[in-house]
Amino acid sequence: MTSYNTVIEPPRLGEPYLLTPGPLTTSWAVKQAMLRDWGSWDDEFRAVTRELRTRLLAMLGDGAEEFDCVPMQGSGSFSVEAMLGSFIPRDGKALVLANGAYGLRSAETLRYLGRDFTLLDKGDYLPPRGDDVTRILADDPAITHVIAIHCETSSGILNPVEEISQATYAAGRKLLIDSMSAFGAIDLKPSEIRYEALVSSANKCIEGVPGFGFIIARKTELEAAKGNSHSLSLDVHAQWTHMNKSGQWRFTPPTHAVVAFLEALRAHQADGGVAARGARYTRNRDVMVAGMRDLGFVTLLDNRWLSPIIVTFFCPADGNFIFDRYYELMKQKGFIIYPGKLTVVDSFRVGCIGQMDETVMRQVVAAAKESLAEMGVTDAAPPDAALKERAKLAA
Amino acid sequence: MTSYNTVIEPPRLGEPYLLTPGPLTTSWAVKQAMLRDWGSWDDEFRAVTRELRTRLLAMLGDGAEEFDCVPMQGSGSFSVEAMLGSFIPRDGKALVLANGAYGLRSAETLRYLGRDFTLLDKGDYLPPRGDDVTRILADDPAITHVIAIHCETSSGILNPVEEISQATYAAGRKLLIDSMSAFGAIDLKPSEIRYEALVSSANKCIEGVPGFGFIIARKTELEAAKGNSHSLSLDVHAQWTHMNKSGQWRFTPPTHAVVAFLEALRAHQADGGVAARGARYTRNRDVMVAGMRDLGFVTLLDNRWLSPIIVTFFCPADGNFIFDRYYELMKQKGFIIYPGKLTVVDSFRVGCIGQMDETVMRQVVAAAKESLAEMGVTDAAPPDAALKERAKLAA
Ligand SMILES: Cc1ncc(COP(=O)(O)O)c(C=O)c1O
Ligand SMILES: Cc1ncc(COP(=O)(O)O)c(C=O)c1O
Repeated sequence: MTSYNTVIEPPRLGEPYLLTPGPLTTSWAVKQAMLRDWGSWDDEFRAVTRELRTRLLAMLGDGAEEFDCVPMQGSGSFSVEAMLGSFIPRDGKALVLANGAYGLRSAETLRYLGRDFTLLDKGDYLPPRGDDVTRILADDPAITHVIAIHCETSSGILNPVEEISQATYAAGRKLLIDSMSAFGAIDLKPSEIRYEALVSSANKCIEGVPGFGFIIARKTELEAAKGNSHSLSLDVHAQWTHMNKSGQWRFTPPTHAVVAFLEALRAHQADGGVAARGARYTRNRDVMVAGMRDLGFVTLLDNRWLSPIIVTFFCPADGNFIFDRYYELMKQKGFIIYPGKLTVVDSFRVGCIGQMDETVMRQVVAAAKESLAEMGVTDAAPPDAALKERAKLAA
Repeated sequence: MTSYNTVIEPPRLGEPYLLTPGPLTTSWAVKQAMLRDWGSWDDEFRAVTRELRTRLLAMLGDGAEEFDCVPMQGSGSFSVEAMLGSFIPRDGKALVLANGAYGLRSAETLRYLGRDFTLLDKGDYLPPRGDDVTRILADDPAITHVIAIHCETSSGILNPVEEISQATYAAGRKLLIDSMSAFGAIDLKPSEIRYEALVSSANKCIEGVPGFGFIIARKTELEAAKGNSHSLSLDVHAQWTHMNKSGQWRFTPPTHAVVAFLEALRAHQADGGVAARGARYTRNRDVMVAGMRDLGFVTLLDNRWLSPIIVTFFCPADGNFIFDRYYELMKQKGFIIYPGKLTVVDSFRVGCIGQMDETVMRQVVAAAKESLAEMGVTDAAPPDAALKERAKLAA
């Protein structure tokens, strides 16, 4: 097992832990980095931007020199839109692989952009498989790009990007990956999985504060992106050429969030890099899921599909269980959880990412136990409908 | 004269003052507000968003109830693009009034969006006048919207938005204002100047940190904006309806910058509101300009057009003056200045906004004097070409 050497401190100002998939709990050092104002035109800030880009690229490992990193203002969805609008030519066609809210959001983005696409909608969580991709691409030669979600954060499923990549390139098409909630904790090495571009953001597994995202793309794709974008603000090619020429962001960068992110990147490396980050989150998940299962909770997904990012649990069938009450009780005990996003049955989510370790996760389980007792819920088992839903994955 | 009761403290971590038009020097309290992590879904953060929107709207004074405020992730340019793409219908046509980089950027944005427009380009700084607008609108009945820049930050000119508004509405068209660098320090009251929407951002006269902008628009325009936007991320109508329904931002907000901005908004009111903020900046400008003129520097603009936001000075003709050296010498003394953006002659800019008062401005002038001496510049007078340029305004 990969070890990690992070020292986790509780939030100094006493706010609750954020068991959410970003914004998440960041270290004190990351937040303290925001106590200075920076001129965005100044050399010192250019050095910050340079180091940030270099460190992100280094996470790709072998073959990183064929890629470049382009930070982009706005939330993660802005970077996804920037990637789609910049790399899919106006006469291209995309296949969007959706199994949750973020896949559907990519499709919605393409609809806004007026780019042609086919949607494979597998519902709330069923994974899009390599065979699905092979079949659809064989039937539709017009498709030029496949869009995959790495960890579909709305259910917490870790999608099989490796087999999706193989099927995509076997058919001579290109892959773009929304790795928002996974990058930095789960490897996405071009030497192992082929793709043209990925996107992630500051407030996920690298544990910065929200304010910008970044696109990591093959230089050949960055060059070919000229003139594609539907938007001045979200033009990845323009941002890239300007940044490489001047060392500056095209428009005002979120300076404080950028400097905080550099602090987070340095800690990420000091902690042991992607492998160690993934190991800590995996341990968080294992401890938390085991404890919750002991209480009778059932996860939406089989272990095979559980990501170390966030886990969906069914709400208990017990009539005494009211989510809003449960949320408040957990918050009073210092933990902010997240509502579910399943359309068929009630659920909630618990994140495993951020400045937390297994000690914190044991406290989460203890808080869950107490909260159930306070609500008078004696059995956390889900309704039959949930178990039926769950059985679909096995079928 | 309006008084103001701000207590200005030098940057606690000793970084230079930012004499730049944003990012700018913020208070310690604003930066300290970023030392906590917030769940973006949580009630407490929704309350922050609500208060922020209410406070911004209140700055409009009478008639504010006909408007609503929509914060938008990304830099100020993202909010400008969001405003243009959301309020100008796809079959509309804009007249862009440009006298510098930001006017031209609006035109470039429309080009990306594929929206029809006419550009009035007055060069580096000459103000677009009411008569210009009347003439162009009379000649072109297809024009539906006029785009004006309030303070054109690239020269520092305060454009005559009042006469532009009168000419626009006299011709039955609509006005959209980029008030990025002016809002919060210069009144833009709908009871005095008619317009449909304005845009500004967190890191300007309200003295927050960068990370988002906001659009303030008539509710009738917000309603009519449905379906106009070219971009999912930058759809003002979608952000507005979602925020009004759920109290949340559609996509992850830059939580730390948002909370810092609320702190800045509270201080803005405690200091005495828009009038007091404008008075402080005006005093900053007057003290700084007088001191620089004493040293022989010449401003690009006559007093009549000087904004209290940022001032352009010509570089001295003296061969010993090298801008990069001057920049470094000023920085060593604790002041970051800004390069000029004029195309014809060399210039630099000094900002008057941020956590600074006249005491600081006197130090700026002293630092300028010393820096000239260190460079061996005995005369700060500009070259003849600059004076010729300057004479254009009188013509
Ligand atoms: C997989 C995925 N894609 C896109 C997004 C959107 O990011 P943002 O909320 O920052 O816009 C998220 C956010 O959690 C995500 O998990
Ligand atoms: C008038 C005006 N418009 C637009 C902008 C662009 O804002 P940003 O740099 O945040 O994208 C600025 C920035 O200074 C500005 O002054």
